[in-house]
Amino acid sequence: MTGLHTDLYEIRMATSYLRRGMTEPATFSLFARALPDDRGFLVCAGLADCLDFLARFHFDDEELDYLGEELGLPDSDLDALAHLCFEGDVWAVPEGRVVFANEPLLEVTAPLPQAQLVETALLNFLTFSTAVATKAARCRIAADGAALVDFSARRTHGVNAAFAAARLSAMVGFAGTSHVASACRFGLWPVGTMAHSYIEAFSSEREAFRAFAEDFPEATVFLVDTYDTLAGVHTAIDVAKTLNLPGGRVAVRLDSGDLDALARAARKILDDEGLPGARIMASGGLDEHAIARLTAAGAPIDSYGVGTKMGVSADAPSLDTAYKLVEYAGRPVMKRSTGKATFPGPKQIYRGESGEPDVLALRTEPPPEGYRPLLTPVMRTGERVGSGHELFDARSRFEHDLAWLPEAALRLRAAEPVHVRRSAQLNDLLARTLHASTS
Amino acid sequence: MTGLHTDLYEIRMATSYLRRGMTEPATFSLFARALPDDRGFLVCAGLADCLDFLARFHFDDEELDYLGEELGLPDSDLDALAHLCFEGDVWAVPEGRVVFANEPLLEVTAPLPQAQLVETALLNFLTFSTAVATKAARCRIAADGAALVDFSARRTHGVNAAFAAARLSAMVGFAGTSHVASACRFGLWPVGTMAHSYIEAFSSEREAFRAFAEDFPEATVFLVDTYDTLAGVHTAIDVAKTLNLPGGRVAVRLDSGDLDALARAARKILDDEGLPGARIMASGGLDEHAIARLTAAGAPIDSYGVGTKMGVSADAPSLDTAYKLVEYAGRPVMKRSTGKATFPGPKQIYRGESGEPDVLALRTEPPPEGYRPLLTPVMRTGERVGSGHELFDARSRFEHDLAWLPEAALRLRAAEPVHVRRSAQLNDLLARTLHASTS
Repeated sequence: MTGLHTDLYEIRMATSYLRRGMTEPATFSLFARALPDDRGFLVCAGLADCLDFLARFHFDDEELDYLGEELGLPDSDLDALAHLCFEGDVWAVPEGRVVFANEPLLEVTAPLPQAQLVETALLNFLTFSTAVATKAARCRIAADGAALVDFSARRTHGVNAAFAAARLSAMVGFAGTSHVASACRFGLWPVGTMAHSYIEAFSSEREAFRAFAEDFPEATVFLVDTYDTLAGVHTAIDVAKTLNLPGGRVAVRLDSGDLDALARAARKILDDEGLPGARIMASGGLDEHAIARLTAAGAPIDSYGVGTKMGVSADAPSLDTAYKLVEYAGRPVMKRSTGKATFPGPKQIYRGESGEPDVLALRTEPPPEGYRPLLTPVMRTGERVGSGHELFDARSRFEHDLAWLPEAALRLRAAEPVHVRRSAQLNDLLARTLHASTS
Repeated sequence: MTGLHTDLYEIRMATSYLRRGMTEPATFSLFARALPDDRGFLVCAGLADCLDFLARFHFDDEELDYLGEELGLPDSDLDALAHLCFEGDVWAVPEGRVVFANEPLLEVTAPLPQAQLVETALLNFLTFSTAVATKAARCRIAADGAALVDFSARRTHGVNAAFAAARLSAMVGFAGTSHVASACRFGLWPVGTMAHSYIEAFSSEREAFRAFAEDFPEATVFLVDTYDTLAGVHTAIDVAKTLNLPGGRVAVRLDSGDLDALARAARKILDDEGLPGARIMASGGLDEHAIARLTAAGAPIDSYGVGTKMGVSADAPSLDTAYKLVEYAGRPVMKRSTGKATFPGPKQIYRGESGEPDVLALRTEPPPEGYRPLLTPVMRTGERVGSGHELFDARSRFEHDLAWLPEAALRLRAAEPVHVRRSAQLNDLLARTLHASTS
């Protein structure tokens, strides 16, 4: 089902346009009006879902029956919708690149009814994915080189959101995921230890540790906080020594309490007991701020399991995105609502090499000297074009942009996004459109 | 795919149990450790997804291949997993009922490997759905009788989350949804007006209003804030009068600015112009607090479109839920981690008629005089039992519990949940289990 995955007003508007022959090309621009608090950048994501949706977009018989029988659309409307698919052009910023407020993540140019009907789905895919990818990127920055693993599958907004969180966190540099189905689908490193229930199912922690180490001697992560954390570390060491596990294959996981203090104490015990190669993993309600505090304190933590707060982008579970008409039938248009004004015309983002402001320009403008365009064609007359939509490509682009971002934009609190200036031509069009719509 | 929709540690633990013949019955209890800030209750939801998942749970050939080839599980493990499905018992609080911290939403009793493997999925479904249903219920309380419509499809965490938000908001009394696919699937009232782009696609607001009213004379909602809101109200009235639209079928939608002041001004203009039956709809970034302010101010708003902040449960996009082993092979167990202690044994929640504290008891205890149980059997040896899983039933239960909740629990800020006291038998078991695990 693709046709009905939309808001009713899109269908009302589209049928109104179709009845009136208003099928001239329209360009819609999808962008974030503002960045959430503390964010210095957004990591573009969700484009693959958009392209899949657009390529499949149509109304099937069941959907048309619903529109006729339940919404009362006449046969003439249903005939028109039955013949409708997406035949437009799409420009987009590739997945993994960073953008700022008012920079289009995607622009659609298509006959007006088509471009209107896909609004809901495009906003959904890009908003959700970009929010989660950005949150995961912030965890990556906070970890400062420590390994990160996605533990979010149990609290994302449904199964499909768990797949997305695993894929998006891998895109920004997470080392693996606990979600096995995602590891299988995307070729990620599956990571898993044991739960407290495992310890409790045995008659003692020692018995549980021994059983687990016997079963998984290649990579044994002992969860040590079920009863008393530091006693658990000692028990893990005893078991590892009894079974002659190499120190490099042993780790302890801390999932509660003062992680900094416990990590230091555990590190000392492991070192004193002759296991300097054993690693320490931390988990339990972590987000970028908690990780940054541990990093800043110098806590000897080798890897972090990051779950819920990344997977739902807890402090910013959505973005203030908009999908706005910027041109219809060759006429630039804009909205002037209080606090929600938009800029007219199809656009391009031009970016310099070394931290100078981005330039938001008209698509037809040449780039300023030394600048490169961010928006690239990804669909022409409904057919996909270009390449580079694989996870590996997106990860490379993110690494490039992460190195490019200035320190002020990387900050986790009170970040300063890179400035975006409007080109003279865009400002000129803005003034002329404003004048035309008020005169 | 159901078998791999889990965290890797579940598979590691399950295979370890299977190798050791640890397949005695285990009971896990799923509950929220605490309510999010400002919440006075939770609305249980997501059970239908859990039961569908449990009924279908198995490892298919592709999944087994992955576990063998990529994770290196030996054939003996794969054989055991291939024969595994969910054959357990499930007790749950039916959808639509309200619960409080530490009250189980669901308890599973099954052979240990089965009960362990389904943890990730059950936590995911119940946490997400309960969070969103609770957020929507708070909007319902804030609206104090005004109609509510779900506008969230464009910013939920994927398509399936859009279906869930439409269904869950209907469960707590929303009148309709903008998401057509959800309206079709669940038999909800589809609601839709026009977007700003519709206005902009015409050469003037008046022309756009006239076209829309001609096309949809049965229910014409004019979006009036594209250029100047109150001028837009006058234009809408002119068009309605020109086309002789009955006042009762006309509405204006305010989507930006000071909604209280604009609603009052619009109401006065509509009344002065002889359209006292015309309605006013408000939308634009609303949540329960914004709605409550408008309600308290007496803003003359007839209906609210509530989108993103409800659909992602913006201030609490997840809950601090846990799935904890409480009994294995007849032995009560508990966890003592700092701040994460659990209560042993299978449980029942007993509730009184008129706001007295709930009683968290052992499942085998009789109810206190005048109290009724909340947890009911929903699955026996892997087969669904009981009825009442329909949306209509859940909605009725929510209405009952909404009327039952005391004022302090209904508050949107600094709410006071109903107190939950532990029965003497539960306290006794707690003391004995604590003693056994430390001695």
